[in-house]
Amino acid sequence: MTGRTLLNTALAAIIAVMSVAAVAQTEPLPSWNDGPTKQAIVEFVQRVTAPGHKDFVPEAERLATFDNDGTLWSEHPVVQLAFVAERLKQMSPQHPEWKDNPAVQAAIKGEVEYFLKAGEQALVEVIVLTHAGMTREEFHGQAVQFFKTARHPKYGVLYTQTAYQPMLELLAYLRAHGFKTWICSGGGAEFMRAMSMEVYGIPPNQVIGSMGGFKFEVRDGHAVLVKTPKLMLNNDKLGKPVGIALQTGGTPIFAAGNVRTGGDIAMLTFTHSNPQPNLQLLVNHDDPERELAYAEKNNASLDAAKQQGWTVVSIKKDWKRVFPFDESDKSSR
Amino acid sequence: MTGRTLLNTALAAIIAVMSVAAVAQTEPLPSWNDGPTKQAIVEFVQRVTAPGHKDFVPEAERLATFDNDGTLWSEHPVVQLAFVAERLKQMSPQHPEWKDNPAVQAAIKGEVEYFLKAGEQALVEVIVLTHAGMTREEFHGQAVQFFKTARHPKYGVLYTQTAYQPMLELLAYLRAHGFKTWICSGGGAEFMRAMSMEVYGIPPNQVIGSMGGFKFEVRDGHAVLVKTPKLMLNNDKLGKPVGIALQTGGTPIFAAGNVRTGGDIAMLTFTHSNPQPNLQLLVNHDDPERELAYAEKNNASLDAAKQQGWTVVSIKKDWKRVFPFDESDKSSR
Repeated sequence: MTGRTLLNTALAAIIAVMSVAAVAQTEPLPSWNDGPTKQAIVEFVQRVTAPGHKDFVPEAERLATFDNDGTLWSEHPVVQLAFVAERLKQMSPQHPEWKDNPAVQAAIKGEVEYFLKAGEQALVEVIVLTHAGMTREEFHGQAVQFFKTARHPKYGVLYTQTAYQPMLELLAYLRAHGFKTWICSGGGAEFMRAMSMEVYGIPPNQVIGSMGGFKFEVRDGHAVLVKTPKLMLNNDKLGKPVGIALQTGGTPIFAAGNVRTGGDIAMLTFTHSNPQPNLQLLVNHDDPERELAYAEKNNASLDAAKQQGWTVVSIKKDWKRVFPFDESDKSSR
Repeated sequence: MTGRTLLNTALAAIIAVMSVAAVAQTEPLPSWNDGPTKQAIVEFVQRVTAPGHKDFVPEAERLATFDNDGTLWSEHPVVQLAFVAERLKQMSPQHPEWKDNPAVQAAIKGEVEYFLKAGEQALVEVIVLTHAGMTREEFHGQAVQFFKTARHPKYGVLYTQTAYQPMLELLAYLRAHGFKTWICSGGGAEFMRAMSMEVYGIPPNQVIGSMGGFKFEVRDGHAVLVKTPKLMLNNDKLGKPVGIALQTGGTPIFAAGNVRTGGDIAMLTFTHSNPQPNLQLLVNHDDPERELAYAEKNNASLDAAKQQGWTVVSIKKDWKRVFPFDESDKSSR
């Protein structure tokens, strides 16, 4: 090959790469329907990443936080509660006294409402019964095993396959534009870390969740971290901005949450107060055909969205498809 | 320029870049003297990064944690204590009652020994007096201002210039080999985050420190995080592995600490128990000429190093130079 031919070949290759990049740029978020929601996302990303634009945000400050249950994946049932229920069922034969424990019985039956009413202490109670005293490695092993085997009661797929396809695309789209994507969930950090990389491409150190305590011990010359009953941070509601501050040291310019309990109002408000340009998404579950329709008792999340100008995502209108699997074809699973 | 000339120019540029890379590879850690310590570091990095080597560790697991005071920079005086003392001095005229407060007086005089004896509660007390009730932004602003102006009493340079030159090279060397470098210090996370990127190239989200509490509030329609008196995690001694677990979700394969209070024994032991290949450095301050010579009362850190086989760094023998500035030339500063 002569120098000239080599150069021509190299130029052709560069042009080919540029064309692929151009196509990728014109077709972001394929599972999102065209409309004001998709437009708001794409326009925001374009503005904050365009050098010289008045809304440009340096890459180090492109922090995006996502709630998990009901925002990134299905929350019916709440997956961590299904995990705890499985453990309780396995352990029940050795604990006849659990028959009279309302928290245990509610967890086994998957009664989320019980825990929403009884509050933090009830949830801590069942977590203590199932996981306190365990080493971090033991807990991680149990969670990994659960994610490998447990299936969603309605869809029949592994829980790890119930992530919303449009949100998976959104995570990848933001990362391709220099954002760091974080989970910020009321769920346990250690539980989510057992699947965050595989499901969302989010490494364990970018998972913010409720923090259980650990105790450092040396057992037979080997250092271990043992789970304690202490709840160091309840990373829900007003706790979410605190968890974000403790782990990231920054403030998001993008955050996504969902309608159900008002759990994401503080995180979205916090992001909205960022002096940098910012965007908030609030997922509204309004699609009984392809997923579910459920609302919030006091409507606080939608009210806050209206007041602060957050972008509400209608699953029914904005999502071309909901799950990576074909919702209409149960036989293929 | 013809195609051929362009190609030749490009090739020349590529060869030049490759030469620089080759030199960089043959000359890592220029401020470290040749010897067993430097050799242990370089050999470890080569083993864990060589694809196909039995000790190869995937990039995602190359986690390195560094103590700050006495390991990455000078700890005489402890910089955060100098910061608190400055605040106390500024506020003293409005607080005549502080004359009878032993913790305040010890902090103003920089008496570290008082705090080592009095324990956590005394330190919390002065931090509460100086910083509780402040917003995160206000605190950050004060810390940034301190780092821009306050000078080391002995060396006359800004505190941010008292980082150890060999450790700055080590951080860069590890990052060039796919490691993620983290600070893991007993100091306050928010304080260190005001300088970690500038001084060490470590972003705020890779700073693990003692965690003060925050309270989320909306003031005049603007969301703020207010510092509370609560100490959520004392990230020293047995707290260090806990802080690492909470923020990284992983276990380091490399950790560096120093001799003084035994503050890094748990972190180094934790790293030593990693089933992956691992390396521990323990910095020993044995150079009264260029820095200082100080020992640990019960010798626990050096005993643990001997027992577990950690690599002890002698500042006197292993470091060609200590600081980025010339220690022998005070006039240039």
